[in-house]
Amino acid sequence: MPEVSIVLIEPLYEGNVGFAARVMKNFGFTRLVLVSPCTLGDEAIMRASHARDLLDGARRMTIDEVYRGFDFVVATTGEVSKSVCTPMRMPYYAPAEVREIVADIDGTVAVLFGRENWGLGNSELVRANLICTIPTSGIYPILNLSHAVGILCYELADLPRGTYPLAGQVEMDSLYRHLDSFLDRIDHPDFKRPNTMILLRRVFGRTKLTTREVSTLHGLMRRAEWHMEKKD
Amino acid sequence: MPEVSIVLIEPLYEGNVGFAARVMKNFGFTRLVLVSPCTLGDEAIMRASHARDLLDGARRMTIDEVYRGFDFVVATTGEVSKSVCTPMRMPYYAPAEVREIVADIDGTVAVLFGRENWGLGNSELVRANLICTIPTSGIYPILNLSHAVGILCYELADLPRGTYPLAGQVEMDSLYRHLDSFLDRIDHPDFKRPNTMILLRRVFGRTKLTTREVSTLHGLMRRAEWHMEKKD
Repeated sequence: MPEVSIVLIEPLYEGNVGFAARVMKNFGFTRLVLVSPCTLGDEAIMRASHARDLLDGARRMTIDEVYRGFDFVVATTGEVSKSVCTPMRMPYYAPAEVREIVADIDGTVAVLFGRENWGLGNSELVRANLICTIPTSGIYPILNLSHAVGILCYELADLPRGTYPLAGQVEMDSLYRHLDSFLDRIDHPDFKRPNTMILLRRVFGRTKLTTREVSTLHGLMRRAEWHMEKKD
Repeated sequence: MPEVSIVLIEPLYEGNVGFAARVMKNFGFTRLVLVSPCTLGDEAIMRASHARDLLDGARRMTIDEVYRGFDFVVATTGEVSKSVCTPMRMPYYAPAEVREIVADIDGTVAVLFGRENWGLGNSELVRANLICTIPTSGIYPILNLSHAVGILCYELADLPRGTYPLAGQVEMDSLYRHLDSFLDRIDHPDFKRPNTMILLRRVFGRTKLTTREVSTLHGLMRRAEWHMEKKD
C-alpha cells in the first residue's frame, strides 16, 4: 500500500479531530493534515488519547497545497450525484473499491474529509482523482467525522489478519478414521454407519477445525476408549 | 442478512453509548441491547444525535438473557490468544469473515462489545459461537468502543453500493473508432498510429468510463471536428 495521509478540511469540533487521530493510529496511519482546523485544546488531546503525537505532528496545509503536494487525492463525500450527468460527484466508489485502486499507486495518497456540517464543497472536490462514499442507511446517513475516518482507515490498512493453522486433509482423514473406529467400539450398527459418517463429516467439515481442535477430539475419544477398556 | 443486535456489556462512558447508537443507525441497525450500562444522560443523547430513538428503545438484559435470547452470539475482543492451545479466544475471525458466516444464519444474531477498559471477560466469552477481532496496528491497538461498533456495523450492513452504468464493449469500440478517425483528421502520422492507439486504449481502458463520460468525449471530438471543418 502507498503512503496515505488523512486530511481534515476545516473540522469544527476538536473532539472529532482527536478521535480521528486515535482511530488513524489504531489502523497504523500516522500522517494527519489539517486545513484551517478549529482550535485544538484539551478535548482534542483527551479524545486522541495515545495518539496525541499525531495531533502534535499534524501538518497544516491549504487545500491548494494538498492538491499540489499529493500524487493521488481521494475525496470522501456523503452526498453523491443522483444523476450520471453531473460529473462533480460521479462516479463514486465504496471504500473497498478505493482500497483496490489505491493499492496500485506508487506515490503519496491523501484522503480528504470535509466539515462536520456540510462536507466538502465543489471547489474542494473538483480536482480529486476519485470520489469515495461510504454506503449508509437512508434512515440516518450522516456519519460522525471520526467514524468515517475510521472506516476508511480500516479498509486501507494493510494489517495482517490473524492466522491459525487449520487442519489439513490428512489430519481430517485421520480424525474421520478415528471416529469410525470409535463407532465400532460403541457398537454403532453397521446399517446406520454410512449416513452417520456423512453427518459427522458434514459437522466437522464445515467448522474448519484447527490442528489443536483435531488433536483435542482425538484425545477425548482415546480417553473414552480407555475407560471402556477398563470396564470390559 | 439475519436480524442483528448490538450488545454493549457494562459500557462505562455514556458518550460512547450515544456514539455507538449513532453509528449503528448510520448503517441501518436499530436493535441496541445494554447490559448493566452506566447512567445515560445528556452526553449520551447529544452523541446519539438523530439516533436518540435507539437509546430510548434499548433493551436492558443480563448476559445470561443475551445467551439464552439469541440464536448466534459473536463476541468481539481486542485481546486474542497468542497460542492455538487456549481455546477461549481462538480461533478468531476478522469482521469481513464474520459477515460471510453470519450471512448464512437464519435466526437472531447478537454482536457483543465489552467494557472500554478491559473488554469482555472469559466468563462472557466462553459461550460465544464466534470470536471476532478487528485487525489493528501494534502501535496503538485499542479502538474506541464506538469505532469498533462502527466497523462491525459497516461490515455487517447489507446496503446497496451505488451503481452507475459503465460503458460496455460496444460503446468503447465506438469511442476507439472515433479516436482513430479523429487522429486521421489531425494528420496523425500512420507510422505512429498503432502505438498511439494502444496507448489510448490503455488510458481509457483502465479508467472504467461511464456511458455519460464516453458520450462527452464523443461530443468534444465532434466539436473539434466541426471547428476544423470551418477552418479548412
